[in-house]
Amino acid sequence: MVKKVLKFGGTSVGTIERIQHVAKIIQKEHSSGNQVIAVVSAMAGKTNELINLSKNISDNFNKRELDVLMSTGEQVTSALLAGALSELEIKAKSWLNWQIPILTEGEHTNARIVNMNIKKIDTYLTEKGVVIIPGFQGISKNADITTIGRGGSDATAVAVAKILKADSCEIYTDVDGVFSTDPNKIPVAKKIDQISYDEMLELSSVGAKVMQSSAVQTAMLYNIPLEVKSTFTNRNGTRIFDEDNIDYSKSVTGVAYSKDDAKVTITGVEDKPGVAANIFEPLNKSQINVDMVIQNISSDQKKTDISFTIKREDLLKTLDILKKNKNIKYENIIHNEKVAKVSIVGAGMVSTPGITYRMFRALSEEKINILAISTSEIKLSVIIDEDNTLNAVKKLHTIFELD
Amino acid sequence: MVKKVLKFGGTSVGTIERIQHVAKIIQKEHSSGNQVIAVVSAMAGKTNELINLSKNISDNFNKRELDVLMSTGEQVTSALLAGALSELEIKAKSWLNWQIPILTEGEHTNARIVNMNIKKIDTYLTEKGVVIIPGFQGISKNADITTIGRGGSDATAVAVAKILKADSCEIYTDVDGVFSTDPNKIPVAKKIDQISYDEMLELSSVGAKVMQSSAVQTAMLYNIPLEVKSTFTNRNGTRIFDEDNIDYSKSVTGVAYSKDDAKVTITGVEDKPGVAANIFEPLNKSQINVDMVIQNISSDQKKTDISFTIKREDLLKTLDILKKNKNIKYENIIHNEKVAKVSIVGAGMVSTPGITYRMFRALSEEKINILAISTSEIKLSVIIDEDNTLNAVKKLHTIFELD
Repeated sequence: MVKKVLKFGGTSVGTIERIQHVAKIIQKEHSSGNQVIAVVSAMAGKTNELINLSKNISDNFNKRELDVLMSTGEQVTSALLAGALSELEIKAKSWLNWQIPILTEGEHTNARIVNMNIKKIDTYLTEKGVVIIPGFQGISKNADITTIGRGGSDATAVAVAKILKADSCEIYTDVDGVFSTDPNKIPVAKKIDQISYDEMLELSSVGAKVMQSSAVQTAMLYNIPLEVKSTFTNRNGTRIFDEDNIDYSKSVTGVAYSKDDAKVTITGVEDKPGVAANIFEPLNKSQINVDMVIQNISSDQKKTDISFTIKREDLLKTLDILKKNKNIKYENIIHNEKVAKVSIVGAGMVSTPGITYRMFRALSEEKINILAISTSEIKLSVIIDEDNTLNAVKKLHTIFELD
Repeated sequence: MVKKVLKFGGTSVGTIERIQHVAKIIQKEHSSGNQVIAVVSAMAGKTNELINLSKNISDNFNKRELDVLMSTGEQVTSALLAGALSELEIKAKSWLNWQIPILTEGEHTNARIVNMNIKKIDTYLTEKGVVIIPGFQGISKNADITTIGRGGSDATAVAVAKILKADSCEIYTDVDGVFSTDPNKIPVAKKIDQISYDEMLELSSVGAKVMQSSAVQTAMLYNIPLEVKSTFTNRNGTRIFDEDNIDYSKSVTGVAYSKDDAKVTITGVEDKPGVAANIFEPLNKSQINVDMVIQNISSDQKKTDISFTIKREDLLKTLDILKKNKNIKYENIIHNEKVAKVSIVGAGMVSTPGITYRMFRALSEEKINILAISTSEIKLSVIIDEDNTLNAVKKLHTIFELD
């Protein structure tokens, strides 16, 4: 007997037919003798619908009440799924977060799960009941409803798996798993059978979003085996676990990319402590998300150039903030508003020599100019002109034998 | 300082604009120094939408989960109203039933409120906070969400008013109050300024539905003054209280009617104990709602005729059940499938002689044939051909000086 947490995302429960289909997936697990805890999202589109209602009242809607409002989305799905399981004559019950309870800390709309009471849940599982839990929410110390940020149902699933000591946590979604690159754009993209937490994090943060990053981090921290798989096919998904358990036959696991980026370079910045902080603090305060940061030593040893990338929509605001910033001295601000980031990701990269060189040569063969480079242990990212994105991804996918 | 329960029905909170309007009504009460507890319904149409989702899974959807599902409707309204009040800089908070808690007994989808914890609510009111409570629901002994039947937000409002010892309970709705007859059909209908609980019950049960009957009964039992008024005008509504406090200048308060009725007469039934029970028990079991019952002594002293009215849609089923009933002996079954019930209602009727005679004469002047008569202390109902309904109502409205 295995204890499994199954998480079903918004598209997986987007219609009544799909909820009935999810009930059948659970039925299969249940009749195999597994203990099943299902964590569900709101039906696709529902959370946005609720947020739009609140926005019609105020763009700055009371956050406590926004949580009360939004939490109904997952509550509806939980009730419908429990009802659909009853209809299949399976013992099942929706467990709202206050009924368990699942406890959170932190502010409204951005809390985090810190604990849950497992007693009643474990008893119900022992009695062969299927436990349905609305994701994305919890209860604060003051018994208020809290939510844990968009995509938070993944975090609920991982937290529940951790606290209930589940044997696995399966993330059912609308794709077959994690791919070597975007299958919608690059038809030769291949599903990855197994991947380490680190690689998953790098791939998901650069565009191959199938699972919320902080949930993967939690799974990594507590070593909870994950599997991302499709609700709509019977195929095996992608298993995500500790890299020690993964056999790296390939040095590169996948090629990720993000578009709609912009690059800003500040030249001739004084090279002394505190400069970077002075540049980025006001951007952070204005909620501008800075992605890659590269600092080059310029020819003049007292001065340096700092480049960074941001979302294109933040470009004008960023330039405005930089120009008004009295705390930095610089020569010039240059920007490029149509760039993309292309990354190769692989936990095996560190032990394979020549990866960097092969990447640069491949891009040069395609006559693609590299505007910036950034590396980590398991990722190598370049900034290029956006027009070259697909060419670059295809070429890298081929030369690293992912086709 | 006055403690008020204000209840807002589905049309009163049917759109964001209307919720904002309700927030302004509350703001006015709050700034007058009143303590305000608002009980809200789901936005118009929402409960049916949720029920339809469940029906797509099963016509016999699990009742516990149906309650979890339906209760989200009022939760959404509560959060939106609390947010709209915050936006007006009024201290306000949604109080979900489990947060109070409001305790219920009885089965899912049909529970009744038995108690609530007033401590936290009273403290919050003392701190000048506006309490928003989702109507129509509660929490069972087992900490499950329960609902208390359609229209149950009225019952919540009255129960909350009773337990919190509120000074009044105001039912905000989409009409100006209780009318002397249907204002949509009879333009001379007049709003009634004050009415007794009994009269209200008789008027609402025969077609002038502005408030749920069981909620009126509870208010009567605990002598809670009610006021039914419009959310959309500033007019005074109808005040409903103990008849001892009402000055009856008029003997008849209103004229009510119901259409879509059918009349069935069973002739030549043995006149002995148990006969009525034998007739009506199988109808009750098939959930056929029998309204008026009249028993006449026929010329043969050993036999009697029994007439009753039912909803027209139940006629064929009723005839079928009667014919299959082996426990009754009779001569004939006669039915009339297009009848209406017209009633005059007034707590002052009992002390005013000649009301009955004036009603019958008025109908006879209009050449309207009376098919059956039934009387109670405060109501006099006749069954007539449906085609004559509006003529009869107009005539009675005029002769009893209600125009």
